[in-house]
Amino acid sequence: MTDALAAARRLAPRFAARAAGYDAGGAFPVDDFADLRQAGLFGLMVPERLGGTGAGFADYAAVAYELARGNGATALVFNMHASVTGALAGIPDTLIEALGVPESFLTARDRVLSAVADGAWYAVAMSERGVGSRLSQLSTMYTAERDGFHIKGSKTFVSGAGHADAYLVAARSAADPTLVSQFLVPADADGVTVEPTWDALGMRATSSHDLHLDVSVPADALLGGVEGLALLVAQLMPHWMVASYAAVYVGVAQAAVDAAVDHLTERRLAHLPAARARIGRADAAVAAARLVVDEAARRVDAAPGEPETNRWVWRAKLLAGTTAADVAASMLEAAGTSATRRGSALERLYRDARCGSLQPATSDVCADWLGVAALGGDPEAEGTGPRW
Amino acid sequence: MTDALAAARRLAPRFAARAAGYDAGGAFPVDDFADLRQAGLFGLMVPERLGGTGAGFADYAAVAYELARGNGATALVFNMHASVTGALAGIPDTLIEALGVPESFLTARDRVLSAVADGAWYAVAMSERGVGSRLSQLSTMYTAERDGFHIKGSKTFVSGAGHADAYLVAARSAADPTLVSQFLVPADADGVTVEPTWDALGMRATSSHDLHLDVSVPADALLGGVEGLALLVAQLMPHWMVASYAAVYVGVAQAAVDAAVDHLTERRLAHLPAARARIGRADAAVAAARLVVDEAARRVDAAPGEPETNRWVWRAKLLAGTTAADVAASMLEAAGTSATRRGSALERLYRDARCGSLQPATSDVCADWLGVAALGGDPEAEGTGPRW
Amino acid sequence: MTDALAAARRLAPRFAARAAGYDAGGAFPVDDFADLRQAGLFGLMVPERLGGTGAGFADYAAVAYELARGNGATALVFNMHASVTGALAGIPDTLIEALGVPESFLTARDRVLSAVADGAWYAVAMSERGVGSRLSQLSTMYTAERDGFHIKGSKTFVSGAGHADAYLVAARSAADPTLVSQFLVPADADGVTVEPTWDALGMRATSSHDLHLDVSVPADALLGGVEGLALLVAQLMPHWMVASYAAVYVGVAQAAVDAAVDHLTERRLAHLPAARARIGRADAAVAAARLVVDEAARRVDAAPGEPETNRWVWRAKLLAGTTAADVAASMLEAAGTSATRRGSALERLYRDARCGSLQPATSDVCADWLGVAALGGDPEAEGTGPRW
Amino acid sequence: MTDALAAARRLAPRFAARAAGYDAGGAFPVDDFADLRQAGLFGLMVPERLGGTGAGFADYAAVAYELARGNGATALVFNMHASVTGALAGIPDTLIEALGVPESFLTARDRVLSAVADGAWYAVAMSERGVGSRLSQLSTMYTAERDGFHIKGSKTFVSGAGHADAYLVAARSAADPTLVSQFLVPADADGVTVEPTWDALGMRATSSHDLHLDVSVPADALLGGVEGLALLVAQLMPHWMVASYAAVYVGVAQAAVDAAVDHLTERRLAHLPAARARIGRADAAVAAARLVVDEAARRVDAAPGEPETNRWVWRAKLLAGTTAADVAASMLEAAGTSATRRGSALERLYRDARCGSLQPATSDVCADWLGVAALGGDPEAEGTGPRW
Repeated sequence: MTDALAAARRLAPRFAARAAGYDAGGAFPVDDFADLRQAGLFGLMVPERLGGTGAGFADYAAVAYELARGNGATALVFNMHASVTGALAGIPDTLIEALGVPESFLTARDRVLSAVADGAWYAVAMSERGVGSRLSQLSTMYTAERDGFHIKGSKTFVSGAGHADAYLVAARSAADPTLVSQFLVPADADGVTVEPTWDALGMRATSSHDLHLDVSVPADALLGGVEGLALLVAQLMPHWMVASYAAVYVGVAQAAVDAAVDHLTERRLAHLPAARARIGRADAAVAAARLVVDEAARRVDAAPGEPETNRWVWRAKLLAGTTAADVAASMLEAAGTSATRRGSALERLYRDARCGSLQPATSDVCADWLGVAALGGDPEAEGTGPRW
Repeated sequence: MTDALAAARRLAPRFAARAAGYDAGGAFPVDDFADLRQAGLFGLMVPERLGGTGAGFADYAAVAYELARGNGATALVFNMHASVTGALAGIPDTLIEALGVPESFLTARDRVLSAVADGAWYAVAMSERGVGSRLSQLSTMYTAERDGFHIKGSKTFVSGAGHADAYLVAARSAADPTLVSQFLVPADADGVTVEPTWDALGMRATSSHDLHLDVSVPADALLGGVEGLALLVAQLMPHWMVASYAAVYVGVAQAAVDAAVDHLTERRLAHLPAARARIGRADAAVAAARLVVDEAARRVDAAPGEPETNRWVWRAKLLAGTTAADVAASMLEAAGTSATRRGSALERLYRDARCGSLQPATSDVCADWLGVAALGGDPEAEGTGPRW
Repeated sequence: MTDALAAARRLAPRFAARAAGYDAGGAFPVDDFADLRQAGLFGLMVPERLGGTGAGFADYAAVAYELARGNGATALVFNMHASVTGALAGIPDTLIEALGVPESFLTARDRVLSAVADGAWYAVAMSERGVGSRLSQLSTMYTAERDGFHIKGSKTFVSGAGHADAYLVAARSAADPTLVSQFLVPADADGVTVEPTWDALGMRATSSHDLHLDVSVPADALLGGVEGLALLVAQLMPHWMVASYAAVYVGVAQAAVDAAVDHLTERRLAHLPAARARIGRADAAVAAARLVVDEAARRVDAAPGEPETNRWVWRAKLLAGTTAADVAASMLEAAGTSATRRGSALERLYRDARCGSLQPATSDVCADWLGVAALGGDPEAEGTGPRW
Repeated sequence: MTDALAAARRLAPRFAARAAGYDAGGAFPVDDFADLRQAGLFGLMVPERLGGTGAGFADYAAVAYELARGNGATALVFNMHASVTGALAGIPDTLIEALGVPESFLTARDRVLSAVADGAWYAVAMSERGVGSRLSQLSTMYTAERDGFHIKGSKTFVSGAGHADAYLVAARSAADPTLVSQFLVPADADGVTVEPTWDALGMRATSSHDLHLDVSVPADALLGGVEGLALLVAQLMPHWMVASYAAVYVGVAQAAVDAAVDHLTERRLAHLPAARARIGRADAAVAAARLVVDEAARRVDAAPGEPETNRWVWRAKLLAGTTAADVAASMLEAAGTSATRRGSALERLYRDARCGSLQPATSDVCADWLGVAALGGDPEAEGTGPRW
């Protein structure tokens, strides 16, 4: 793990140097991912017995923070891969036993994770337009075929689309629409097409395009070998994604402070009281958000899914999102007009930083859930707000 | 004036429909300016005796607000033209007499303004890299020639560069560098070149490029016919520009509220309490900022340059800048991720809105000046902060 | 009206000098009210034909602002009196005719208003514990007696209790609880007792105690001479009270800025950049809130009760409340620990200023209503939030 | 230490139950201090070899947080005692050796600390009016007498005045005013008089009165037995006080959230979206501030006085102060007018919470120092801002 963190720190400046280029054209950070593969970071969450680093969530959050100081978009895509592999690796054996998950699931899982240790990486194809990531309302359906399954439907916000080795696709059974299953679909399979729809304010280099599927997959593409297990992974992934988004946005916020410090120092404006006050308050806010993310990550490792853990995850998401947006806006104001030129790190960071609060669970939703929980209610209950 | 305001309201939706296109490529809003010319708005500030509308500053602010609801960038470029023509038209006769300005100045001024009524528009070439708009430190110099003057130097942030009919250029005399003069340089003169440097976070369609000058102009290009009169116009323009920036950014802020309302209504999300609260607070903030801009504009008409007028101008600039940025950020959060796609009005407005606080006088500078004034000090005195 | 405003300006410093004393003990500002009576301000809203000043709402708001710069608590109690008299005086004749209000109402109203011009002042006894000011749920009931009515019940938040000459009491008919009527109950009538319950964070000198009623009143105490007319006055009073609260809190906010300026100047701390920035931003915020209150007041005069007028009233209430609280908190921070000693104007203003957002309609409710209205909904409709 | 923390948790509800009473009259929390003595908490910072608990700073911060959830004023007074004893106990032996501090210092220190373990507690008499706590400008002077010293002068902000067993008094030598020494002056000595000047907005029960000294003390009252050692303790105390203030205000902030939750639950208002959002955001902010205080405390234990430790101390102070004030204000707004009645916990907490940002180093000063440090400057250097 020490090696992984060191690698992330070593790579961050390289990512930073390339970030403006990828951002400008909305191009996927191909070289960053080559670096990640070479550094062995794809296997970060894979158990050591399968050739990976065997990192825990807190380890991951530390890596994500460092990568995001280089390029938040790269860190976000990496985050999806880490979430998939981390969720798979983290399913407790006791849970598998309790649920009566067949032995085949474990074998399949290990195969998937071993491939990662060998240099593969996965993207997540879950959200759909108008549905978001509510599994029970997916319109992507699958049917059983002689040697496997056929999947048909369209996905959106697929970060890394066109570059991942395979997609983790969620779909419902045409035969029994209450069954939601997940399939690992190779990126080069016939009938997998990427529609380049991603052209957004920030995090432009994530290539979060649409994915169209009309594809046949062999039987062992079904994750776990048994239909209807999607919730197993899906229920583990949200805190993963939420908390790991948070780490990314704290890294982005710190990068904004660093960029403003550089900008003011170069222009010999470090004496301006208003700029100093902005930097000082930003410094404190980012430090606080980082501690909250670390605390949430520690608790995800120690007591995943427990109510108090979830509260820390929501706190982390809320504070990371709002801190990143507020800090980047203030840093731009400290640095002045010259920092708004494209190519300036702050110009990009200002756009990237705005996205954190908007990613699910949004800041407003996190605030509501935290309020409900503090008031003794159950945010998981029906009717209290938008859900996954 | 009623006609001018009606024309602005009529044009705004057209500007809005074109805004995404000009923003994407950072292209000058050629069609918007054709519309402005055709509607006779170039002559807004020109006295009626010279064929113009004879509008006052408050009239102008109302027009700028409407134009900015369509496209803030178009309104900003128009603002520079209106500032030049408004400052020229507004120089009090008593002041001219008191300063002993020669008769020729009046003739020259009228010629310049008449051309505007006939459809010409001007850009301002004042700022220089590293110097900003501090006239006493300009490096652009002029020398007297047989039939006129030769001007040599480089300007930056020249909004409308490459599209205006002429540039109002500030330069210092090589013979006596304490003399600062202004020249109206035809855009098509030999030795006037535009370097397309403008590629920024927001207000991308202003074409605020660099301008390089190595150009000879006839004697009557010297504004007023007498060297050293630059301060006359320059001292009148700042409150013009500051207060008119403010009107533009209030228009941008209102456009952000309108866009969020449309977005939420279309997606049937108007019932979400958090979104409603955001819209409600934004509505109040924009309404307040608009009243402050109107009040400042009325006072600029009634008592230009007086200390209390200046305080209102700074209040207007401060509140317009901070309100636009805060409101646009909150509206994006109310609308959600889908509003961050490029082409979405909110995506552009979020970037445009951020620029107001950064344009001189920045929000931090305005706050400082207001504080100094409230504490009984003189913000105009040396040493209290950055100046023009 | 010029005289009234001048009188308010003349009295404000006297009120300010006494404010700490009344605040400390939570005592009613007896001397302030003697001053108000002597200056003829009780009759501010009374038509000139009845011996009053015949002021409109905008006039009133200007007076309230000035009084509040002296003592917010005094201004708040005066506000209740002005709301009652202003609402009565402002009932349009056309409305009275349309509703078939008997002639006797006009006579009774004129008698009530004439008494005011002669030096009487009234308090409002409407709210009840647990019910607030929802008239349909009042538990204070009245029964017809031989020569008039008997009223029984308890009221809370009766500003000026124990000092007003009469109370405007809202009660429901025991015979037909759907009838809500209002009575002007003399303060010295048998069965009117004040329970000194008011001991609060701020606005301590308003004596907003509980009032217990077990009292018989003559027939002509029934406002309008006809039962069930309470809604007539009640529906006119809310915008009165809401908008006039707003004027009071802007005055309190301005007083906080003034106190901080004095504090910093006396201690020779006006050079501190952080203090200057705080003063500057507060100056702008208060100026904006004041313009919004003025605009709302003008519209209440011109188009009372219209949807757009109501929106301005909510904007005024929202911004006055939040601005007062935020500004007072920031001014205390600018001034430092020494300003927190009791007896310091800022110490009191900080507590007084906090109350604005909490008075109905609260800031959160105003924000919600404004949001609903901006989104095309009807805030007056059922189910959109707390109501009067 | 586990016992100390358990004791603090056990005492907090008792403190809370008494808090309104002490606050109302500005009375010293005599019963709280009796409880603290009985629970052995006076000796918290005293080494185990001298009969104390031997707690570190992080331990202390945890205790202070719990006590403050009961009564912030009690926790603040306790904080001064803990700062004195903690600073004395924490002077590293190596430093003492390096400075050539005589053996007698260690003996005297141990005597002082042993008395504490036996149930004594100390107050700090350092600040003077107009001077603050700048030791080099103190006007309290001492002269050598036959058997000891005579001290003459006046102190302000002496929390616990009239109740502590002894005062730690800082004074300058009349013979050599560059020498600043500290004396432990028994509270019952002739010539020690308390002037009850403390009557403030918040933290009213701290009895931070003025202290007048015209008193003779024996030679061994001189801390360390050598003149001029005041800086030794004084330089260690600031981070102590700053960081421990922070722990207190986070406790106050948490108490405000708890009080709002109780208030809303009792009144069945927990379903209001605006209230829920306020509670949720407050919950996250307090959690973040608490982590920052804990981190700062850990670093004060591990690397006292190092630049990075100091930055964490400033972050803790800044965030605790601003969070407490913001959260208490928002909680009052969530709870509504009924929570502003005196006797309501929120009413008191709102006033107490405002004081954190104002205590030195103020929030504005901390922000400036953090900004200077982030920009590569040295906040300890001359001229960068207000100092101790």
